[in-house]
Amino acid sequence: MRARNNVTGKTAQRNFFEDFSPGQVLRHATPRTLTTGDQALYTALTGSRFALHSSDVFARALGLPQAPLDDFLVFHIVFGKTVPDISLNAVANLGYASCVFGVPVYPGDTLSAASTVIGLKENSSRETGVVTVRSTGVNQNGETVLDYIRWVMVKKRDPGAPAPTPVMPDLPDSVAVENIAVPKGLDVSAYDSGLAGSEHLWDDFEAGERIDHMDAMTIEEAEHQMATRLYQNTARVHFDLLAAKAGRFGKRIVYGGHIISLARALSFNGLANAFRIAAINGGRHAAPSFAGDTIAAWSQVLEKIVLPGREDLGALRLRSVALKNQPGAGFPLAGTDGKSDPAVVLDLDYTVLMPRR
Amino acid sequence: MRARNNVTGKTAQRNFFEDFSPGQVLRHATPRTLTTGDQALYTALTGSRFALHSSDVFARALGLPQAPLDDFLVFHIVFGKTVPDISLNAVANLGYASCVFGVPVYPGDTLSAASTVIGLKENSSRETGVVTVRSTGVNQNGETVLDYIRWVMVKKRDPGAPAPTPVMPDLPDSVAVENIAVPKGLDVSAYDSGLAGSEHLWDDFEAGERIDHMDAMTIEEAEHQMATRLYQNTARVHFDLLAAKAGRFGKRIVYGGHIISLARALSFNGLANAFRIAAINGGRHAAPSFAGDTIAAWSQVLEKIVLPGREDLGALRLRSVALKNQPGAGFPLAGTDGKSDPAVVLDLDYTVLMPRR
Amino acid sequence: MRARNNVTGKTAQRNFFEDFSPGQVLRHATPRTLTTGDQALYTALTGSRFALHSSDVFARALGLPQAPLDDFLVFHIVFGKTVPDISLNAVANLGYASCVFGVPVYPGDTLSAASTVIGLKENSSRETGVVTVRSTGVNQNGETVLDYIRWVMVKKRDPGAPAPTPVMPDLPDSVAVENIAVPKGLDVSAYDSGLAGSEHLWDDFEAGERIDHMDAMTIEEAEHQMATRLYQNTARVHFDLLAAKAGRFGKRIVYGGHIISLARALSFNGLANAFRIAAINGGRHAAPSFAGDTIAAWSQVLEKIVLPGREDLGALRLRSVALKNQPGAGFPLAGTDGKSDPAVVLDLDYTVLMPRR
Repeated sequence: MRARNNVTGKTAQRNFFEDFSPGQVLRHATPRTLTTGDQALYTALTGSRFALHSSDVFARALGLPQAPLDDFLVFHIVFGKTVPDISLNAVANLGYASCVFGVPVYPGDTLSAASTVIGLKENSSRETGVVTVRSTGVNQNGETVLDYIRWVMVKKRDPGAPAPTPVMPDLPDSVAVENIAVPKGLDVSAYDSGLAGSEHLWDDFEAGERIDHMDAMTIEEAEHQMATRLYQNTARVHFDLLAAKAGRFGKRIVYGGHIISLARALSFNGLANAFRIAAINGGRHAAPSFAGDTIAAWSQVLEKIVLPGREDLGALRLRSVALKNQPGAGFPLAGTDGKSDPAVVLDLDYTVLMPRR
Repeated sequence: MRARNNVTGKTAQRNFFEDFSPGQVLRHATPRTLTTGDQALYTALTGSRFALHSSDVFARALGLPQAPLDDFLVFHIVFGKTVPDISLNAVANLGYASCVFGVPVYPGDTLSAASTVIGLKENSSRETGVVTVRSTGVNQNGETVLDYIRWVMVKKRDPGAPAPTPVMPDLPDSVAVENIAVPKGLDVSAYDSGLAGSEHLWDDFEAGERIDHMDAMTIEEAEHQMATRLYQNTARVHFDLLAAKAGRFGKRIVYGGHIISLARALSFNGLANAFRIAAINGGRHAAPSFAGDTIAAWSQVLEKIVLPGREDLGALRLRSVALKNQPGAGFPLAGTDGKSDPAVVLDLDYTVLMPRR
Repeated sequence: MRARNNVTGKTAQRNFFEDFSPGQVLRHATPRTLTTGDQALYTALTGSRFALHSSDVFARALGLPQAPLDDFLVFHIVFGKTVPDISLNAVANLGYASCVFGVPVYPGDTLSAASTVIGLKENSSRETGVVTVRSTGVNQNGETVLDYIRWVMVKKRDPGAPAPTPVMPDLPDSVAVENIAVPKGLDVSAYDSGLAGSEHLWDDFEAGERIDHMDAMTIEEAEHQMATRLYQNTARVHFDLLAAKAGRFGKRIVYGGHIISLARALSFNGLANAFRIAAINGGRHAAPSFAGDTIAAWSQVLEKIVLPGREDLGALRLRSVALKNQPGAGFPLAGTDGKSDPAVVLDLDYTVLMPRR
């Protein structure tokens, strides 16, 4: 492990594995007011075109005050705040669980975030350990906009430091239906599927069904860097070519969240009516992506979920798989050796809301 | 013609030539609220710097409520909506006619669009046909912001499908002066040409006069991709390097509208007082542009137009020619063989408003 | 000196050395309303994450009406306006002095700018001369937002033109403490250093102390071009690869102001509480930067300044040094030959405000 001298101590080295303790609360820096400028950039960087996030008029017809910001933009903003405290010294972002999207975020809302350490386990190498945190993003009224668990492999400052008593959090397989939040006031009786871009509503999908989203996008360095800076995510691997040249890949790594956003935008072609992300049940960045990679995606309906008390609206549990440099046709997933197909870069299990007939 | 399997039928293949019929109306998806974020991106991506679109104070001095969005930003937003329904399976965008800019668009306005098929003609190859549509963009009050005709060469799904009875629309050479819309309330008596950046007003231009705009801009992949995604234009040729490698050029093609915007921005140097695009009379993308190309432009005054009832304001019909990898000096247009000079990428015939002395 | 023909005279060649005269006032074009869109782009292009500029809630807690735009965004907007009149024919941007940041700029404010020629001196080569101007940016209420002196080496149109009587302005070493403007209503008693991202306040810094900011960012062509166009800075060297290929470096040069913004953003790691730029005392672009360069930075505290009548707030005079393709560790500055280390691209002397304990 290379240590850089911080001569004066003013520069933050941030937390290593031994700096975390069970129950510890970390209040993250840089509260952020989100604006229509952020949404415009998100659209330009990802190609998002879901009607609800594109049009105030469409949003008002559904009972909301104006177009809410894209759900994954909110995710990345909250995630970005956690990076300096949780994962600046991480080797790998291992997974997500129990991610619930709360109240929608509108232009002018200010988000801040905090995390609680809920799991700690040193690895057998003694060089790293797994830290599990529950992170919560709230708006200026204290309402939760996002709540999720993630676990990361973090370097130890000193491999010789004693191992903590392992704490293993209980991680549910998926977000329970009673935890899915339908935005207050949402009424899809006036939902216009023509304007939304697809006639396929909740009733038309079947569990097991697979959809090739067909479109694909090639990533440029400037794009992923701009996106990641927009989220004020400071992980060095995304920005510093000089350091990256000495590293494992010899180049900058694309923020995994950018791949999530591209997969979501590509999914419009087939899932245009999946107007709201309700939850992330789990997710895995199967391989890193780099500038020059072309990202395609396919999805599978894992489950059709009836929402208690709602006849206008259902939920779909989806698996979206993002691929690099390979089309989605054929739905590649596992390689011949049983491991992930090497083209798979993302395997995301999440839940969306969709109008019913 | 290569067909990709859409296993579940959820992914839209969109319209092929035989899916169009005369009089057919297509209502396009994704209504869009435009914001100051979109304008900021447009400025950053194109270099636009016309005072009316840059300053609320300047706009108010001319009787408008605030700075309207750039006219070509509005054009690209409306155009982008038509792409999935009209030109996703197009081989070429052949031309524009009768394009009139209606009421100005302000931040907060929501645009939607529809198209009517007004022409259909199969090509002799039987593999493609020409589809002509009239597309209209409206704001949230139902006011027309843009109305134009374009024709595209679209692939047939099945070359053996029967040819429709040819319908040939009547296309005027130019937008008639009585169809030119002057924004309501516009009063240029307080127009400040010093702030606008040039002392050359309508009276100072002569028909036939040519202007080398001198500046030039080199296009990057990230720039044209971001611009095209901002417009929610989903044509695959602009984004998917993997597919492009198997195609005719082996690389991504820059959206032709991005070249229009660059030519317009470059024209500031000489035409800074052309504060409003009133019409596009015709236009041709003479050759494709690619990342790495340096775009320059020159313009010629085709006609000086007196606007009935206005002594403060006149119109100029202009031809702007955009070039790749060649300066505008010398006004390149036709090559030695009588065809377009190979450097010409755009030949646009349009009408602008400009204050009179 | 190459002259390009401007056939009609409509295209501005702008000012050469002999076009300037002492006391001359140049009123610059393109007034600009700044918006949250501009701020979002600034964040995405530079990585800025100071809490005051990121959060309306944080700003209100300090007595301001909302989050002001980043100070260097304001600087670049004003600077950009001066380029067409002052430095379009400049060979080099030589230096800055006496730069004072006035009232904060908020989304919706409209800035315009003017410059007065305060110095003129022909160089011995007779091909160029040094022009010194004092430039002032004001908002829509006529309040000064920025006031600074810069000097540039400008080409003569005609080397044989007679030399003007040299006028040498008096340039102070630094902005005097009585000229430092604290934003009206600012009250840092509720300053939350946890949200700001660092526990190190004014009291914790010592004159002479050096800080390696550790982070680094690699510049892409699309990024510096977008930033420079956002500022409506039209200097051709940043955009035109075709012309650049025939020039001294064979490639586009990054706008020096983009390096200032990157150095400022990188300085967050160590100086997160330097929430406001109050002044630039002097600055030098030691070497050009190009796309592909990785920028790192370090800073030194030159002076701790007590602000008269304020016990809640102090100022720090800082030197920030930006480096290309070399980390800040070791604080590189002078090379072995006594000249600048070749990695140094910026040496900026400026003054920031910071809360006291």
